[in-house]
Amino acid sequence: MNNISFIPQGWENEIKVRVANISAQLRQNGIDAVLLSDNVSLYYTSGRVFAGFTYITAEGNVYYCVRRPIGFEGEANVHYIRKPEMIPALIETLPKTLALKTDVLTVAEYNRLSQVFPDADIVDASIMMRSLRSVKSDFEQRLLKDCGIHHEAAYSRIPAVYHTGMTDVQLQIEIERLLRLEGCLGIFRVQGNSMELFMGNILVGENADSPTPYDFAMGGSGVDASLPVGASGEEITSGKTVMVDACGNFNGYMTDMTRCYRIGEVSELALKAHNLSVSINHRLAEFGAGTPAKHLYDEAVRMVEEAALSDYFMGHAQKAGFVGHGLGIEINEAPVLAPRSRDILEEGQVVAIEPKFVIPGVGAVGIENTYIVRADYLECITNAQEEMIALS
Amino acid sequence: MNNISFIPQGWENEIKVRVANISAQLRQNGIDAVLLSDNVSLYYTSGRVFAGFTYITAEGNVYYCVRRPIGFEGEANVHYIRKPEMIPALIETLPKTLALKTDVLTVAEYNRLSQVFPDADIVDASIMMRSLRSVKSDFEQRLLKDCGIHHEAAYSRIPAVYHTGMTDVQLQIEIERLLRLEGCLGIFRVQGNSMELFMGNILVGENADSPTPYDFAMGGSGVDASLPVGASGEEITSGKTVMVDACGNFNGYMTDMTRCYRIGEVSELALKAHNLSVSINHRLAEFGAGTPAKHLYDEAVRMVEEAALSDYFMGHAQKAGFVGHGLGIEINEAPVLAPRSRDILEEGQVVAIEPKFVIPGVGAVGIENTYIVRADYLECITNAQEEMIALS
Repeated sequence: MNNISFIPQGWENEIKVRVANISAQLRQNGIDAVLLSDNVSLYYTSGRVFAGFTYITAEGNVYYCVRRPIGFEGEANVHYIRKPEMIPALIETLPKTLALKTDVLTVAEYNRLSQVFPDADIVDASIMMRSLRSVKSDFEQRLLKDCGIHHEAAYSRIPAVYHTGMTDVQLQIEIERLLRLEGCLGIFRVQGNSMELFMGNILVGENADSPTPYDFAMGGSGVDASLPVGASGEEITSGKTVMVDACGNFNGYMTDMTRCYRIGEVSELALKAHNLSVSINHRLAEFGAGTPAKHLYDEAVRMVEEAALSDYFMGHAQKAGFVGHGLGIEINEAPVLAPRSRDILEEGQVVAIEPKFVIPGVGAVGIENTYIVRADYLECITNAQEEMIALS
Repeated sequence: MNNISFIPQGWENEIKVRVANISAQLRQNGIDAVLLSDNVSLYYTSGRVFAGFTYITAEGNVYYCVRRPIGFEGEANVHYIRKPEMIPALIETLPKTLALKTDVLTVAEYNRLSQVFPDADIVDASIMMRSLRSVKSDFEQRLLKDCGIHHEAAYSRIPAVYHTGMTDVQLQIEIERLLRLEGCLGIFRVQGNSMELFMGNILVGENADSPTPYDFAMGGSGVDASLPVGASGEEITSGKTVMVDACGNFNGYMTDMTRCYRIGEVSELALKAHNLSVSINHRLAEFGAGTPAKHLYDEAVRMVEEAALSDYFMGHAQKAGFVGHGLGIEINEAPVLAPRSRDILEEGQVVAIEPKFVIPGVGAVGIENTYIVRADYLECITNAQEEMIALS
């Protein structure tokens, strides 16, 4: 039926290594097998989103138990099932200890899967999978660098779609179109059920200071109480800033990048805070693997205090409690750059750093870049112009 | 801070009625209280998405336990909390029986909330909430009718954005823009974690027959294995159909509408199947409240068999097992119009009916409308032109 293979072309070796790494972790933790069913885990373990389950054993065997789509019959490790109760018949030895992801499975799903293996001790796979996924392979780093290139290309066209008299929503729609035409897939994967956002956040002027339900650097009231975040439909006027923080998912992985624009001239305070955000990015990029994640947060706060800009840092009316976050398949992976984070930066992790400010009467300023953690520094992979850019 | 109120203006009475209905259900089931935390339930019980919890008692009291956003301090029933462990101190009597939604809570969330009320028997709120939400009030029906009007307005502009030589992805991007400019919020709420889709499905020619991971009427390979559904990036050519099934979320509620277009002339078989889809919609709209949902499925199948078009019905390579579904805040609410559905249509329920066909060599044909269930019929609220429309 399909002329494509279950493991996408070019992913074969990458998937072998990932399965081997998961098996090694299972052995190390004395767990016989892990059963994964959320889209992110299915994609991570196969290179493809499908309906079904990935079952990986401590011995290194992988079973792709597929409900849909049809078309991969007879391929290595692919087994068609109608329901999870058919999995035990496929595998050689029933697990004594089985890991499930309690951070994504609903209670109903968890209860059903537990009953598929009634004699197994069920343990949690969440931390193990989060930790494994946080360190990106060379293959993943290439995908992320590719996102950064497309992300930058789309942003470079933003000045061309702006015109005087636009609302923030109208500008957002044109930016969405630029991203989609550049190949952006549009969806935005978030760990956890609660954070909803459509393709990113465009914040103009005072709206940046409207508090949202989320632990976001910035806010925005949105246009409807069912999605109370982001652009509010107001006209963009002179003396205000426009902050663009939009979706960088071009291949299943994503970069996070924020850039800031101005309409006419903005206050000295706004320019000073923006330039400090750029300096904080550059300074934090001097840290490498082995640095405690909280140290980056502390260093950002130190620089902000030195510049006497604390009142505006990470929001004004409502403040966010972090300065950066890991990302990859999801926008909120490990590590977290926050004051109480226990994470230590590891080589190959990918982090977005977003020291932002809200300046009353002007709007949000600052930038966000995505970096790959190297031994001695952070390599920036979102290389668009960092200065505040004039729109007219 | 805000000049808006926690319960959005105009929603006050509607929210009172919803809370009263939930309380009545709790009393009827001998449950003391329900604790809700997913965005859909928070929106349903307050008219607003926020971070936190809605706690409703059998006596009819409601507590909005808000973590974020700030700005609603001192409003009726609003209580600021930092964590769920602070809820018991707010309420007058601890519940002996507490309902939680096991269909949306993760295991980790459920365990934490259960421990907040260690002495309560925990029961499932899923079916109760699903059933309550399936019947739409006059207020909700007005929101849905408004969606239908905007949905139709955006679709009416589709012929104006098509041009020869476009790919399906390029056309999809222009349709997304039309919808967004018309006020579409973009996001697309789905019950369950597994179905991912970006703003709808545009299917051209043979791609309609590519199987997807989902129990969709139609398929599409997508452009990346991380989102294997929908438009594939191929050029739209003469003799093919274009099926547009895109997001109708204009106010937190949504309509579902599919329309079908042709490039040049398409085969007689394709036209026949399309017209049968229209006829099935009209025929099924003659049924009203009290009809078993499965009866609508059976009637559709009977008409398809009579026309000898079964091979193409609800997919060709991979078939979907339903002909329609309830919708409202989410795209997959009760009832389900499927062969083994036990649902009985109730007045005020809202259903999308989508008898579709895939014609080999041509593409997908058929329409989808959204209907409000009335005593004796289904009232169509998506009134765009139903015939196949020529693009050129």
